[in-house]
Amino acid sequence: MLRAALGDRVDTSERARADARADKSGHAASGTPLAVVHAASVADVQETLRIATATSTPVVPRGAGTGLAGAANAGAGEIALSLRGMDRILEVRPDDLLAVVEPGILNADLNAALAEEGLWWAPDPASRAISTVGGNIATGAGGLLCAKYGVVRDAVLGVDLVLADGRLLTLGRRTVKGVSGLDLTALVIGSEGTLGVVVGATLKLRRLIPGEVCTLAATFADVRTAAEASAAVTASGAQPAIMELMDAASLAAVHALLLLDPPTPGAAQLTIQTDGPAAMAEAGEIAEVLRTAGGTVTVSRDREEGERLLAIRRSMHPAMETLGTTLIEDVSVPRSALPAMFDEIARVEREHGVVIPTVAHAGDGNLHPNFIFAGERDAAGIVEVPAYIWDAADDLFRAALRLGGTLTGEHGVGVLKSRWLVDELGADQWELQRQIMRAFDPLGILNPGKVFVS
Amino acid sequence: MLRAALGDRVDTSERARADARADKSGHAASGTPLAVVHAASVADVQETLRIATATSTPVVPRGAGTGLAGAANAGAGEIALSLRGMDRILEVRPDDLLAVVEPGILNADLNAALAEEGLWWAPDPASRAISTVGGNIATGAGGLLCAKYGVVRDAVLGVDLVLADGRLLTLGRRTVKGVSGLDLTALVIGSEGTLGVVVGATLKLRRLIPGEVCTLAATFADVRTAAEASAAVTASGAQPAIMELMDAASLAAVHALLLLDPPTPGAAQLTIQTDGPAAMAEAGEIAEVLRTAGGTVTVSRDREEGERLLAIRRSMHPAMETLGTTLIEDVSVPRSALPAMFDEIARVEREHGVVIPTVAHAGDGNLHPNFIFAGERDAAGIVEVPAYIWDAADDLFRAALRLGGTLTGEHGVGVLKSRWLVDELGADQWELQRQIMRAFDPLGILNPGKVFVS
Repeated sequence: MLRAALGDRVDTSERARADARADKSGHAASGTPLAVVHAASVADVQETLRIATATSTPVVPRGAGTGLAGAANAGAGEIALSLRGMDRILEVRPDDLLAVVEPGILNADLNAALAEEGLWWAPDPASRAISTVGGNIATGAGGLLCAKYGVVRDAVLGVDLVLADGRLLTLGRRTVKGVSGLDLTALVIGSEGTLGVVVGATLKLRRLIPGEVCTLAATFADVRTAAEASAAVTASGAQPAIMELMDAASLAAVHALLLLDPPTPGAAQLTIQTDGPAAMAEAGEIAEVLRTAGGTVTVSRDREEGERLLAIRRSMHPAMETLGTTLIEDVSVPRSALPAMFDEIARVEREHGVVIPTVAHAGDGNLHPNFIFAGERDAAGIVEVPAYIWDAADDLFRAALRLGGTLTGEHGVGVLKSRWLVDELGADQWELQRQIMRAFDPLGILNPGKVFVS
Repeated sequence: MLRAALGDRVDTSERARADARADKSGHAASGTPLAVVHAASVADVQETLRIATATSTPVVPRGAGTGLAGAANAGAGEIALSLRGMDRILEVRPDDLLAVVEPGILNADLNAALAEEGLWWAPDPASRAISTVGGNIATGAGGLLCAKYGVVRDAVLGVDLVLADGRLLTLGRRTVKGVSGLDLTALVIGSEGTLGVVVGATLKLRRLIPGEVCTLAATFADVRTAAEASAAVTASGAQPAIMELMDAASLAAVHALLLLDPPTPGAAQLTIQTDGPAAMAEAGEIAEVLRTAGGTVTVSRDREEGERLLAIRRSMHPAMETLGTTLIEDVSVPRSALPAMFDEIARVEREHGVVIPTVAHAGDGNLHPNFIFAGERDAAGIVEVPAYIWDAADDLFRAALRLGGTLTGEHGVGVLKSRWLVDELGADQWELQRQIMRAFDPLGILNPGKVFVS
């Protein structure tokens, strides 16, 4: 039926179906999906969903498969619906500071095209070279720049959404302001494929920031001191574009990978970037705050030196792979609670006997603890996370919630965190969210078993 | 029943009940509400809604009654639930750049308190001296600063919401980032009392902007030239904090009211403010753009002179009252479409034989056309808008939609624009939004007859 309607956009090869089982989390769905549909148009998506509704077949929307929570993993009896091939930029309007794009375009490709017109789209996930705009919207993925330049919701004016039954809705608008009816655009951002399939987006752009960029690197005796220093920077009123924190284990692993001199044992590092017309002045003020907080600080006005310093942070994932297999987590806490959260991570390490190298987007309070364990990945990169690691993660999630934080700052709930969602939302809100989901998808065929799992 | 539960917070005086019938739109509900509940606590709101659910009595939440779409107007058989008395600031966290407030606090009072700590909450409706934060959230009211400093959704981290049945939900979070579950905070913003009653909000704050403020006033031969100049400023890459446009009729009326020399006949004016560390440089660049576009430009670095220039814009409403009775409208279009929208307004004036002095937040494309007519307001300020004015407004709304715009940039739908909502959303989205509303309020007792009216 799919084949008759969509021809060779329906891929039933072993390879494609196996690939669609997993994302970058290392988790895979049980079983293998029926087929992968490589949608080439909005009509393809509508047709796929009409057939899915007629046959009550679950559909799992998928971008580049770089997710870290398993939300795009398709298993037995399901159709994987890939939007990756719909990757055109349909319109760029420098005068209205907006772009209309298809969902499959890579974040980096979009920004390369926009840069030619002096524009950029601010969401900046670490995965930007390999992740899509549609995936970014579906997960609400943030990145390094959120404290200064906002989260995904702040950067999307509207989305085109295909509902479970194949109808196309145009949500949101092309205007800066607009309050007619409910904000369904915001509801779709971060909904992880449970409300519909995003087939287009109207993005709110910014001008490229003029002026120079200053980069500071500051070393501290331990991670708590570094976390206190980052909180002090925020409290001082400075607004860095980027403020990244690496704990001692992360720093040591990256230095080893990059063949740099080993860091002082126990030392943690902040890497901070300021931009815009006041970049130099702001860097000077921040350097003072960092020194007062006990840091050894270097400041660079050279863009290349800045990139070299940030490359240390960006080498985190490959460095972790040298230590073992990892479960990458994603809690977020109020910025003032960062030192307390690092205390909690140290406690979890002690009490559970696990190693959790951690980096943080310290400017916005988002931490990525990397739980290291000895499991073996199979040829497809898939691994079973052992129960004792989930126990430690459970302890860490609850600590984040106690500190006024959240389970996930930017990776999403997917399958891996669905069992904790009710702890954060409370039973009443969880149930209400599920009812809203049902208004979009009465048959429950959109990404079942993800996010809202009872 | 209400009286037994809530004592003297239940006000059945003629005066209070009559006041609750109307807002600043001039429109009033038919009939008079049963009572006004002056809630003093979250528990009062919960109790009111429990009784309302038990008795199937409609409830109309209300702040300061400054709305312009009739959304807070309570009529026969309804309970008006006033949040105005819940006006405390519960918490201010400079280190986390957030504040927790009750909904009844006035926007201006909040910002006066925040300024003492070098902080501010960016939403800046023209009504800020008399409007509440809760009303601001309920309508998604924007103001003058949205192009540079964002809309209400960008400035709210979470809301506490009492549902129709009295249950209290805590939506959103205290962190910069967070993507666990659906973004119900965004759904509540601009929902105009149809989803629940906002009893608290966690607001995202900014630091007060350091540096000087520059104000430019530029006069143009006609409104189209002024609109083209404002579009040219946006297209140039400059980012003013404020960019206000007044057409000839508005300017003449304000000059007359303020006893200033009459402006050149036909002339329109842009008033622009830049701020931040690059304010002077940016003002210089903008002045060049304005002169190239045919403007006569003055630039002032003096804050008081800047306030005097902006006072002309802020005198718009009293000036309109000297011309007759007004229906204040609120369409928004993409910024590049501002000149075309002014052409449409001129066409509507011609074809319908009405006068529509118009001001615009030109930086974000939001226009406030003021339809002038001869109707008499009664003692309570209430007036019937004549059918020929609605016909002209209908023509103007449809023109805004054709230009890629929206019915309402910041005032909301309320009762006055509910009949056009389906034209903007489309029937499928309109019906889906209504279903979502029913998930929050199955009995339909929250602000019935507003926004979604079939």
